[in-house]
Amino acid sequence: MTSVDGIEAATLPADDRGLQYGDGLFETMRIAQGGVPLLERHLARLGDGCARLGLPLPDAAALRGELGAACAGVAAGVLKLVLTRGSGERGYRPPQRPAPRRILSLHPSPAVEADAAARGVRARSCTTRLAIGGPLAGLKHLNRLEQVLARAEWRDPGIAEGLMLDAEGTLVGGTMTNLFLLRAGVLHTPTLDRCGVAGVARGLVLECAPEVGLRVEQRRIAPDELAAADALFVCNAVVGIWPLREVDGRPQGGVERLADLVRATRARGLP
Amino acid sequence: MTSVDGIEAATLPADDRGLQYGDGLFETMRIAQGGVPLLERHLARLGDGCARLGLPLPDAAALRGELGAACAGVAAGVLKLVLTRGSGERGYRPPQRPAPRRILSLHPSPAVEADAAARGVRARSCTTRLAIGGPLAGLKHLNRLEQVLARAEWRDPGIAEGLMLDAEGTLVGGTMTNLFLLRAGVLHTPTLDRCGVAGVARGLVLECAPEVGLRVEQRRIAPDELAAADALFVCNAVVGIWPLREVDGRPQGGVERLADLVRATRARGLP
Repeated sequence: MTSVDGIEAATLPADDRGLQYGDGLFETMRIAQGGVPLLERHLARLGDGCARLGLPLPDAAALRGELGAACAGVAAGVLKLVLTRGSGERGYRPPQRPAPRRILSLHPSPAVEADAAARGVRARSCTTRLAIGGPLAGLKHLNRLEQVLARAEWRDPGIAEGLMLDAEGTLVGGTMTNLFLLRAGVLHTPTLDRCGVAGVARGLVLECAPEVGLRVEQRRIAPDELAAADALFVCNAVVGIWPLREVDGRPQGGVERLADLVRATRARGLP
Repeated sequence: MTSVDGIEAATLPADDRGLQYGDGLFETMRIAQGGVPLLERHLARLGDGCARLGLPLPDAAALRGELGAACAGVAAGVLKLVLTRGSGERGYRPPQRPAPRRILSLHPSPAVEADAAARGVRARSCTTRLAIGGPLAGLKHLNRLEQVLARAEWRDPGIAEGLMLDAEGTLVGGTMTNLFLLRAGVLHTPTLDRCGVAGVARGLVLECAPEVGLRVEQRRIAPDELAAADALFVCNAVVGIWPLREVDGRPQGGVERLADLVRATRARGLP
């Protein structure tokens, strides 16, 4: 199922600025029992992104209705919302009165190892670096070629995620996830002031950590800190928390240390 | 006129990776007397971009035929080719055997002051910075949100272009053009190893400069060097060379010093 501006449609106008320039945002939401567990967080982030890009926010009630209708009766799946600046003339200049376009699509749940949360997944390091310092840091915008190039680096289905560094060689996160390191009772996660996406699951983890006795530090993290961590995990709103049991072939322990955090985030809507 | 994969169509599939991730490239070409004057350069750059993104290059003969048909009988205009990685499932990972999609559209020539090349245009400095150090430097790819945000900074139709700095505060170029500074018989232009687009017109200028007695230096250029230039210009394949007669309200002289270079590039296909 795909809809464009609320009407079932498989196509959209070729002059859409989402296609022409990546001029827009997206949200990838987990569907569970006919609803989106973290809907308010997704809508809040979308609103923040619209404000930063100068994009009119769609009518909230209409959008909620549309999202609700799309996942009604769906036991499990993924709902992706793309919001673009709509059609426009050729040229970077945004239309003076843009008519943003919503593209909503329903997808199957990702194929994930059944016991990924309990056992952990394998990850690798990507060589593709993330550019730093532009105006888009933290946003879930449509300019995702860096992630595409990073994800193209491996095809082994046994590798669940690739970790990315920024242009200066500090850790940013996974291609589609945020990254956390647990060490001596403190959770460390990369700051996202220069690049990266501020994930909905990341936000939830930051809130839940104190509830399970973990202090959180957001800072620049060097890749050699990975090996010294008591436990590592990546997360997003669709897969939840994925402990890492291996990075670049090096075994990583500590999955069991994350059990309380996993429980706390599940109680708040992560899978 | 818009065509998708050679067939007249105003829409394209919503699962196109150009829309979903900006996973693709584009070329904006000037049409003159039913042809594209710099066609070989555009196709060469497209080929380079395809190689860097791991995108299969469309069949060259078919593409040439399609471009030729699109501008047949058109006295003047702009032909835009968007080449995406085609449709794909949700997720950053490119399809194993992508079927790239071509979106070709015909546009009117931009409204330009009639004597822009002789008299120069007015430019301003943008506050939007370009991120540096990723894998996309130099490419004419579809991730153009930074340029969109920069172009959104002004609406005064008397300002023809905005100049952009990278995250470290060095000059990169205009939102849609490359930048050159003339000083003491040497042409200086920013290196594009960290961000920016290697324009077709820029390449032509680099080649023509020695023919008119100008040495060229590609290097990092600080914004305060603008005021010390004997002449300044921006260029792209559609508008050609635009001398700057004013930057941020400061008058800039030297337009006449560029006359030989303008003549030489016109002889090679710039307008």
